Amino acid sequence: MINVGVVGATGYTGIELLRLLSKHEAVELAVATSNSEKGKAVQDVFPSLRTHVDLEFLGHDSEQLKTCDFVFFATPHATAMHHVPKLLDQGCKIIDLSADFRISNSELWEQWYQVEHACPDLLSKAVYGLPELNRQKIKDASLIANPGCYPTAITLALLPAVEKGLINIGDIIADAKSGVSGAGRKAALATQFSEVSESFKAYSASGHRHLPEITQTLNNVQAESEINLTFVPHLVPMNRGIFATIYVKPIDHAEGLQECYAAYYAQEEFVDVMPQGSHPDTASVRATNSCRIALHPGKDKSQPTVILSVIDNLVKGAAGQAIQNMNIMLSLDESMGIATPGLAP
Amino acid sequence: MINVGVVGATGYTGIELLRLLSKHEAVELAVATSNSEKGKAVQDVFPSLRTHVDLEFLGHDSEQLKTCDFVFFATPHATAMHHVPKLLDQGCKIIDLSADFRISNSELWEQWYQVEHACPDLLSKAVYGLPELNRQKIKDASLIANPGCYPTAITLALLPAVEKGLINIGDIIADAKSGVSGAGRKAALATQFSEVSESFKAYSASGHRHLPEITQTLNNVQAESEINLTFVPHLVPMNRGIFATIYVKPIDHAEGLQECYAAYYAQEEFVDVMPQGSHPDTASVRATNSCRIALHPGKDKSQPTVILSVIDNLVKGAAGQAIQNMNIMLSLDESMGIATPGLAP
Amino acid sequence: MINVGVVGATGYTGIELLRLLSKHEAVELAVATSNSEKGKAVQDVFPSLRTHVDLEFLGHDSEQLKTCDFVFFATPHATAMHHVPKLLDQGCKIIDLSADFRISNSELWEQWYQVEHACPDLLSKAVYGLPELNRQKIKDASLIANPGCYPTAITLALLPAVEKGLINIGDIIADAKSGVSGAGRKAALATQFSEVSESFKAYSASGHRHLPEITQTLNNVQAESEINLTFVPHLVPMNRGIFATIYVKPIDHAEGLQECYAAYYAQEEFVDVMPQGSHPDTASVRATNSCRIALHPGKDKSQPTVILSVIDNLVKGAAGQAIQNMNIMLSLDESMGIATPGLAP
Amino acid sequence: MINVGVVGATGYTGIELLRLLSKHEAVELAVATSNSEKGKAVQDVFPSLRTHVDLEFLGHDSEQLKTCDFVFFATPHATAMHHVPKLLDQGCKIIDLSADFRISNSELWEQWYQVEHACPDLLSKAVYGLPELNRQKIKDASLIANPGCYPTAITLALLPAVEKGLINIGDIIADAKSGVSGAGRKAALATQFSEVSESFKAYSASGHRHLPEITQTLNNVQAESEINLTFVPHLVPMNRGIFATIYVKPIDHAEGLQECYAAYYAQEEFVDVMPQGSHPDTASVRATNSCRIALHPGKDKSQPTVILSVIDNLVKGAAGQAIQNMNIMLSLDESMGIATPGLAP
Repeated sequence: MINVGVVGATGYTGIELLRLLSKHEAVELAVATSNSEKGKAVQDVFPSLRTHVDLEFLGHDSEQLKTCDFVFFATPHATAMHHVPKLLDQGCKIIDLSADFRISNSELWEQWYQVEHACPDLLSKAVYGLPELNRQKIKDASLIANPGCYPTAITLALLPAVEKGLINIGDIIADAKSGVSGAGRKAALATQFSEVSESFKAYSASGHRHLPEITQTLNNVQAESEINLTFVPHLVPMNRGIFATIYVKPIDHAEGLQECYAAYYAQEEFVDVMPQGSHPDTASVRATNSCRIALHPGKDKSQPTVILSVIDNLVKGAAGQAIQNMNIMLSLDESMGIATPGLAP
Repeated sequence: MINVGVVGATGYTGIELLRLLSKHEAVELAVATSNSEKGKAVQDVFPSLRTHVDLEFLGHDSEQLKTCDFVFFATPHATAMHHVPKLLDQGCKIIDLSADFRISNSELWEQWYQVEHACPDLLSKAVYGLPELNRQKIKDASLIANPGCYPTAITLALLPAVEKGLINIGDIIADAKSGVSGAGRKAALATQFSEVSESFKAYSASGHRHLPEITQTLNNVQAESEINLTFVPHLVPMNRGIFATIYVKPIDHAEGLQECYAAYYAQEEFVDVMPQGSHPDTASVRATNSCRIALHPGKDKSQPTVILSVIDNLVKGAAGQAIQNMNIMLSLDESMGIATPGLAP
Repeated sequence: MINVGVVGATGYTGIELLRLLSKHEAVELAVATSNSEKGKAVQDVFPSLRTHVDLEFLGHDSEQLKTCDFVFFATPHATAMHHVPKLLDQGCKIIDLSADFRISNSELWEQWYQVEHACPDLLSKAVYGLPELNRQKIKDASLIANPGCYPTAITLALLPAVEKGLINIGDIIADAKSGVSGAGRKAALATQFSEVSESFKAYSASGHRHLPEITQTLNNVQAESEINLTFVPHLVPMNRGIFATIYVKPIDHAEGLQECYAAYYAQEEFVDVMPQGSHPDTASVRATNSCRIALHPGKDKSQPTVILSVIDNLVKGAAGQAIQNMNIMLSLDESMGIATPGLAP
Repeated sequence: MINVGVVGATGYTGIELLRLLSKHEAVELAVATSNSEKGKAVQDVFPSLRTHVDLEFLGHDSEQLKTCDFVFFATPHATAMHHVPKLLDQGCKIIDLSADFRISNSELWEQWYQVEHACPDLLSKAVYGLPELNRQKIKDASLIANPGCYPTAITLALLPAVEKGLINIGDIIADAKSGVSGAGRKAALATQFSEVSESFKAYSASGHRHLPEITQTLNNVQAESEINLTFVPHLVPMNRGIFATIYVKPIDHAEGLQECYAAYYAQEEFVDVMPQGSHPDTASVRATNSCRIALHPGKDKSQPTVILSVIDNLVKGAAGQAIQNMNIMLSLDESMGIATPGLAP
């Protein structure tokens, strides 16, 4: 049996990992850590896990993490980087769901996160854990930088077009919307129920940390020029879900895009290219590891093609994709433990 | 492999059955019917089932139902009763999630449902599918009357106290609250988003159809006198979940109740008696087959004990319990296909 | 012009006072205080007040409060009591929306609020600001204890029956539900959007601070015996609104209750006794100062009468009622500034 | 006193008109019509209007409409056009909140609405009721085409830049989001609570009826070339509010835009140009007639400027703007009856 541990298991990403790992047939959920809830029973903090998880929260520094084959970090940024080197030395494989290893250029990372990186030498060893792009590298990796939620939804929606050179990469707009769980599980005024419910707003309209992550990936799959992406995130009064509305300018004609996307993802279990003109909603991917994509070509050449992309931010955008990566690294069925249909309603 | 069919698969209970049955390891989802969507692909009607269910909706009268070992009815009341006799004759086992076979007295049923019963003779053959009460009878049954959502939450919360004679059964109040999916999936003004969101209300305060179902069950487990239960349902602006706040008067003292409940349900995987004084929320049972119960004894003898009970109306209150019943009838592990932790958030 | 000030204007009750007072024709909103936002412009903290309120937040200790004819306290409990004596000496009239002056027995208050009262001598001077009960006393008062939100909804629903001796006061159950704004505007994990949305729960099921306030009022209007009220509050995933479902046992027969209520409130502009058997919803009183009440007599003598009562917790349950009290004290039209229909949806 | 009537008073726009007109000091709400609720008391259909509106619904063909000085149409499209000519002949002034008179080219209208226009000759007499653009024409009009909700939010956000020639009008993207009340008050599956809550989606991504209305207005204020606007609407799980995120390419540099907008709307009471870089939310305009606009210039010339614009779809996007138009036509204070701050939360 494979032993797994979750560091920072009291955020929404953490509890989602506990939920999914506790039922994963090939692994044993052995350790859950939380500095704030250390010493408490997991099921006392999360009643939804009563009868399912029989663990006590340890601290992030617990020695027991070293006995794990896989350690997942569901911590805020700038935490994992302090623990990962030691655990890698112990032979643990690491899947980091935070931002610490996503940007390969440490200066760029430090500029966006405003803190010095603790182990920049590891950045080149980290594999960006988007299976649809990096499956082979993931297989052999020991350190996975699990993609962010917005980047997952947006990158999957752009990969085929960018890689195949079908759109103008100098003019892409991604208008993205997220459920509130994306803001994390912490006491904050801005995400109080009565501040969010019955309201809608943009945030970080002048620049969001997920932007360099997206452009890095898209720059890596083409050699033409620099991606120019405008990315504006919004907050939706709902718990889960990311919806990205992406406006692109096809280079020749938009008709080929649908075929290109269908072919590109034909073998991908977790990317569903819907019939052209479809309107996916976030509810259709709730609690699933799927990304659904639909294309709407413009009426004529002067108009952009609209690409719609939806995921569950806590599953394909975090915990589910992390498990997908683990499955790949273990040569298991890639969908083990995450093959569920959407919860509707 | 066991073949199963779902009649009326376009309501919320129906789609929940499709979701759960499509992943159940011991059965093959062979038939889904809908008179309104007949001929369409299931996944075109329910995008959340894309890649998971590859069926076309047949009509309720489809001959293919006869090839099923189990047929689930997720139809409005007064529908199943027209189809069940024929299917029973064919050897199908029936699990009816509607109200048609829940009330053993046909006159009482007709009074509440205002329609003549089509097969009153079958009422005595139907077993009320509450596993915690009727597990043995369910094992041998061919026709299961799957309990309603409110009755499941309220009955489980009262069974131990009533059966053991610990409370005054002449004075019970059940103030119950339901998510909107309990009203079904149909175009109705009263359950439009803007009529429900940011609002809360009681309905059927002078009498709701689930009342006779609850009192019938509770009368059957004690011989003292008639249960006198006041039941007021309310509508909560959320999709899923039932919350029952039940006020009972302990006969002697309230202290013994906690112990009684813990013992009564000690072997039940799907009933979680929480520590006394706990506050369960519906989110903790979202997408699970669990019922969580917590007791709050009154400060002194003059005050009622408050019993809190939560379920997911579509799972333990409908599709999940139906599958639990099927598992029992098939001598499978009772939790097969429905053993998931809560989805939080 | 009457000068008014609001102390603690950054909670939901505070901002509601600012919203209503800024449009009140007879008063000038002169001061708003907040210790946390001191020095900031009100409209920078609350964009909904942009172009409507042109003030800067002062501290609670600002001398400018003394220039106000009326000072409203919208502070947490145990704050107003430290400021009120001084302001009364200056001749200010005080309307305290917190709990500090609601309980006339200081020992009982200290037992529930776990802090020593700073000016117990003032408790006898304070008038409980429920206009429907104390209109004459309010007229001449200089210190108003503005009722809590739950107490307003529950007391108005019980007053006629209790005062006229029509129900058994030894057996009353109030199952009450509140929108989330009732928990105040502060960063707290329990009221984060994703903790509350799509969930429903009871809280303080074993005892809530609003209980002694309700029983004190009801005991004062009858001399028979002690009120025995069981009160369980619940949290509803919505911003505004209180819904109380109250179960009472009529002494003789339930038929007279409707007539009694209609007569009792016949002259009250803000209490709407609906036709018997109605189902009020909280949306119908959103943003209004109204309380709507509906009675559902039991089917027979053995069953309780159900009383449904709805208010907007921030208006009739707080800021609106405070202004109603001010209007009475100023001999203005009682509905000035608060005479709006419900906002639906 | 001015007599006013509302035709089609049972939709959300209709009830909002009743709410606002019932408190308007200069008018008498004399008639409300509804073909579906004809004969019922308004307050029985809308409990939020109890004690505020004492009318009975008449039919759309009621002769009493002719006695009204102003008649508001809050009907679905293709209804007003059958009644307006007759009422104009009677001397009534008409404010049509539907789409019937918004497009001056009848062929274009017929193409989008798929029905023959009943009185195309009146199109040239109708004044598009956007006060910030057409105040003088509105003053003298007898027939007002009240703007749609999306067009109001988007047009106000683009007017200054387009009129002053500051942006590339060949490349504008408007990603817009609406609360569910925008879909109207009718029983429909797609807007059932459980279909919408906890979900987010785009709709009509390939073309929405509000597009020609927006481009017509913007083309009218500049002579350069044809506006090329891509408009994608989305559905937000909330009752009220429109949020538009608009991406424009400044011709020279983006810096001048803020100043231009501030100057353009300096005298407008209902358009609030916020400080550059602000993030307005829909809650800040709830129940108000305000539009708040904020600009986010791109980091460099290659990037678009992002314009954020919020309104309440039922007020500035419908009933409030209609009353603003009426006030202008009556030479009243333009804000009479609609000068309220936002309802928060």
